[in-house]
Amino acid sequence: MNDTTRGNQPAGYVPPKVWSPDTQYGGQFASINSPVSGARFEQALPVGRHPLQLYSQGTPNGQKVTILLEELLAAGHSGAEYDAWLIDIFKGDQFGSGFVEINPNSKIPALVDRSVDPGINIFESGSILVYLAEKFGAFLPTERRARTRTLNWLMWQMGTAPFVGGGLGHFYAYAPLKIEYAIDRYAMEVKRQLHVLDTHLARNAFLAGDEYTIADMAVWPWHPGSLFGVYGTHEFLAVQEYTHLMRWYKSIAERPAVDRGRRVNRTAGEPGEYLRERHDASDFDTLIRQASA
Amino acid sequence: MNDTTRGNQPAGYVPPKVWSPDTQYGGQFASINSPVSGARFEQALPVGRHPLQLYSQGTPNGQKVTILLEELLAAGHSGAEYDAWLIDIFKGDQFGSGFVEINPNSKIPALVDRSVDPGINIFESGSILVYLAEKFGAFLPTERRARTRTLNWLMWQMGTAPFVGGGLGHFYAYAPLKIEYAIDRYAMEVKRQLHVLDTHLARNAFLAGDEYTIADMAVWPWHPGSLFGVYGTHEFLAVQEYTHLMRWYKSIAERPAVDRGRRVNRTAGEPGEYLRERHDASDFDTLIRQASA
Repeated sequence: MNDTTRGNQPAGYVPPKVWSPDTQYGGQFASINSPVSGARFEQALPVGRHPLQLYSQGTPNGQKVTILLEELLAAGHSGAEYDAWLIDIFKGDQFGSGFVEINPNSKIPALVDRSVDPGINIFESGSILVYLAEKFGAFLPTERRARTRTLNWLMWQMGTAPFVGGGLGHFYAYAPLKIEYAIDRYAMEVKRQLHVLDTHLARNAFLAGDEYTIADMAVWPWHPGSLFGVYGTHEFLAVQEYTHLMRWYKSIAERPAVDRGRRVNRTAGEPGEYLRERHDASDFDTLIRQASA
Repeated sequence: MNDTTRGNQPAGYVPPKVWSPDTQYGGQFASINSPVSGARFEQALPVGRHPLQLYSQGTPNGQKVTILLEELLAAGHSGAEYDAWLIDIFKGDQFGSGFVEINPNSKIPALVDRSVDPGINIFESGSILVYLAEKFGAFLPTERRARTRTLNWLMWQMGTAPFVGGGLGHFYAYAPLKIEYAIDRYAMEVKRQLHVLDTHLARNAFLAGDEYTIADMAVWPWHPGSLFGVYGTHEFLAVQEYTHLMRWYKSIAERPAVDRGRRVNRTAGEPGEYLRERHDASDFDTLIRQASA
């Protein structure tokens, strides 16, 4: 098809031979985006009393890790006690020198395991999930078939989330202009992803089969978590129609550790709903007191 | 900014309350995209004589796996002998029932390990890399620090590739219309990724440090492989200016196993350059004979 007036687009744009970052469109995140990586200012990171120091924000990628940490604690792994410090990505905290030293990619979440000296730096939510699961021997099966199923779906999550967030979420909710072609493109792809999950969960209790694993913890905040939450696209994508996915989603939401994990390092919400930082299991008690006050 | 005439966009598009797949724009892949997953026709997959059966195409994600398999063979792991069957994604082979049974997500590459019965299905390139590296004990360190560095960068690759391919590649090379805002968005992000790598490789021989790992094999076909190759965006992004990245890229390109791996399951190119399928190490000899004929 050559009709370039479709999709709310006039014809005629020709990209330059060499791209330059001179166009400013505005929109969410526009002021902090740059083609150049690295630290923008000096700022050491705070360090708390636990071996595990998490620097994060309660976005879907952040929630993956706090959910796993709370699940580990609930399963009796006391070594998983952690300090969760807020890295406010809307304010550019991810460009401080201390954070960049841990993660040169300037994205949350980042974790430092200080149980060894020097500490081990872990970045990318998928890497953190594997690291913690292997450290504590939980939620990532060691038997080869079940382990493979878990990693298949964990990697599926890592590769699909950019279509949900950077794609649909950006063009539907964040971009300063509504581009029909882009919204259609990502709506189609995210619907396809939801259908893949729905079909799989019609025959499996969890993504890796009978066992609840880090694959579930990785997917849950994104599919369909982010569609109900930050992007507000659940009605647009008719998410409720994926009944097997919804069954799985609700069953995981009912887990107390998941309910705690999703509240950490968040700045918005009703009083008593979220924790800006988390340094002790009793921090959640404060939340409950606030909520019932 | 509220000037929605910027970025080659007229104002006025309002997404519907509920999305429906009724708009057809054309462009590469448009005819095979659908919001519904699953098999579209019955088709059993062929099975060759080796324990490892790969169903793939020589895209950047496909190359990751054939590069690792050739590296394993070069390192003396004879158990890594494999049959590589072409799944032509432009013709829709990924929607055949046999392929969907292995990978319900209908994306290449997919691998079956038939050294055990029943065979183990592995999908997502990142999962296949980890599976093979663990099976043969190679290219994924077991020492915790080096292992963590490897997985950090492998996961970085899984999360960034959709911005390179599904983002920049799509809007620059494949979409039926040139959308300035989208091209600018993804050009900025991919430049940032190139800068992250360039900065890191200024101080490290390989992504995980001194050792060549599956992280390098995952990133190489994408950053900057795909920018020189399938998307033709190397000049647009001034890729040559990232000199540390280019040093690393060229040093890996010179490895004989990488040179073999990148030629497998490809349909285009000069005679003698590519192998449609690969069933034996001697298949590459044919290539060399053709090339020198």
